[in-house]
Amino acid sequence: MYQLIELIAVVSSAIYGVLLARRHGMDLVGVFSLAFMVAFGGGTLRDLFLDRNPLFWIANDHYAVIVFVLAIVTSLIPMLPEKTERWLNLPDAIGLGFFSIAGALAAVEAGTSLFIASMLGVVTGTFGGVIADVICNRVPSLFRPAPLYATCSFLGCWLMFLLNASSLPEAYAVPIAIAGIVLLRLAADRWDWRLPHFAEDEVESKEQA
Amino acid sequence: MYQLIELIAVVSSAIYGVLLARRHGMDLVGVFSLAFMVAFGGGTLRDLFLDRNPLFWIANDHYAVIVFVLAIVTSLIPMLPEKTERWLNLPDAIGLGFFSIAGALAAVEAGTSLFIASMLGVVTGTFGGVIADVICNRVPSLFRPAPLYATCSFLGCWLMFLLNASSLPEAYAVPIAIAGIVLLRLAADRWDWRLPHFAEDEVESKEQA
Amino acid sequence: MYQLIELIAVVSSAIYGVLLARRHGMDLVGVFSLAFMVAFGGGTLRDLFLDRNPLFWIANDHYAVIVFVLAIVTSLIPMLPEKTERWLNLPDAIGLGFFSIAGALAAVEAGTSLFIASMLGVVTGTFGGVIADVICNRVPSLFRPAPLYATCSFLGCWLMFLLNASSLPEAYAVPIAIAGIVLLRLAADRWDWRLPHFAEDEVESKEQA
Repeated sequence: MYQLIELIAVVSSAIYGVLLARRHGMDLVGVFSLAFMVAFGGGTLRDLFLDRNPLFWIANDHYAVIVFVLAIVTSLIPMLPEKTERWLNLPDAIGLGFFSIAGALAAVEAGTSLFIASMLGVVTGTFGGVIADVICNRVPSLFRPAPLYATCSFLGCWLMFLLNASSLPEAYAVPIAIAGIVLLRLAADRWDWRLPHFAEDEVESKEQA
Repeated sequence: MYQLIELIAVVSSAIYGVLLARRHGMDLVGVFSLAFMVAFGGGTLRDLFLDRNPLFWIANDHYAVIVFVLAIVTSLIPMLPEKTERWLNLPDAIGLGFFSIAGALAAVEAGTSLFIASMLGVVTGTFGGVIADVICNRVPSLFRPAPLYATCSFLGCWLMFLLNASSLPEAYAVPIAIAGIVLLRLAADRWDWRLPHFAEDEVESKEQA
Repeated sequence: MYQLIELIAVVSSAIYGVLLARRHGMDLVGVFSLAFMVAFGGGTLRDLFLDRNPLFWIANDHYAVIVFVLAIVTSLIPMLPEKTERWLNLPDAIGLGFFSIAGALAAVEAGTSLFIASMLGVVTGTFGGVIADVICNRVPSLFRPAPLYATCSFLGCWLMFLLNASSLPEAYAVPIAIAGIVLLRLAADRWDWRLPHFAEDEVESKEQA
């Protein structure tokens, strides 16, 4: 089952990366590189942090081929309809859900504490997008007041731990947690659920001007 | 002693990260994520570079809990006084001093040459801040003409190597080197000590326009 | 031969980093840090991804000394002639060629598939520049429509695999592939060869405004 989760996460994230790259007017290399980073960034950090070796995309080398083919195929498709903005949310939410749980499961298996495992779930789930934002020269949405994102991942990981602790078999706990993350993320985006945030200081605005 | 150095470094850096995040108007997730990256970024790079395993914040999983609690507690404190700008320097300097020496010590222990050890001290001491700057979409101060920063770390590491070589016990050499870095950094900031720098080329200004 | 390839790659990339840092008006620490990152960034990622240990610049600690001396020496040279822009391309192309092949060779040796090896060749060849661009707060040229860059690296890796497969000894295949990358890159830059790219969406421009 773990393989399947990872595969779905990779494909969703790659699609998200490709759509994002098209919106930024990138060429084929840019499309592929961004898709590659979004799809493999979070999981690579997790594998490095946990000293898992070889990395998941080196061990499963068909992942890179899939991303490559996806990038080429989508390059042949003419202009996407204008609503791409909305389309971006679905693969992003699916990637978030599957990668978060894949990250938390790998951490638990490596013997970390549950708190560290939930952190690694969040890192695995969100870091592809953070890298993409940094590359595209934007303050990552993780660090801007924006609809719940990392929070969904964090809560989903703890939901899975709770379900496991209540002796629900993993075969049920895992899909429930993933679905929880995806739905919470889509709902947060739809109804603009946010955490409270601090007012930005004057100082900073001046500095950036 | 090593544990204590690392703990002080983590706490100072986390406080710096929290204050920085507040100045940027981030929400709780942003505050925690930034504090996490500033506190663990440099040491994580060091551990990855030296292939130390598990990472220091996975081995000492109370570090992440401390950062988490710090982020939540500070979220409950109302607006900080306006002088935050100045407040930022102290935890930053303390984090720089403790992390630089922690990095250099770990490298020496892993058997690198002294020059490489001083490089890793600088990386460990400064990288949390570099990551924070990149995330916040600013050219890291490490790369802008600014008061001495990495230089303090570099000199402090060599001060420790020299004291060690002159057969001063580590129990003295380490605190002296740390204090040297912190004081030099605060003094550099106070009196604006800088290295000479090149005039920025016209070409570049044009390109960015 | 592998050592020589890596040495040339490091020196070229360091020179590129130094020139780039001068154009941005950095001080000595900035010059050294940027040279360090451009010279070691790609190879460090490769070593981390392949779990090669110790890292190539820790194992060969004269590399860091060379970069350090380069940064100091160039700091003493007065203003470079105005044509630096053009000068930047040569060390950049040489670094790209040598690092790409060094990356691909290391990956093949570590037993990855050829496709993954070519990916790691591209990562090793291009990532120093990507890091430099991110640090300097620009969208990396890898992700903007620009003359062929990663493509040269990718094609060069496959040229080497093909030559190897056709039983040409490595002593010939490697220099031919490196020369191919360097020349293709210089030609692409000279005559502005590009890949087709997508029109940038209106949506995005608005968002950045």
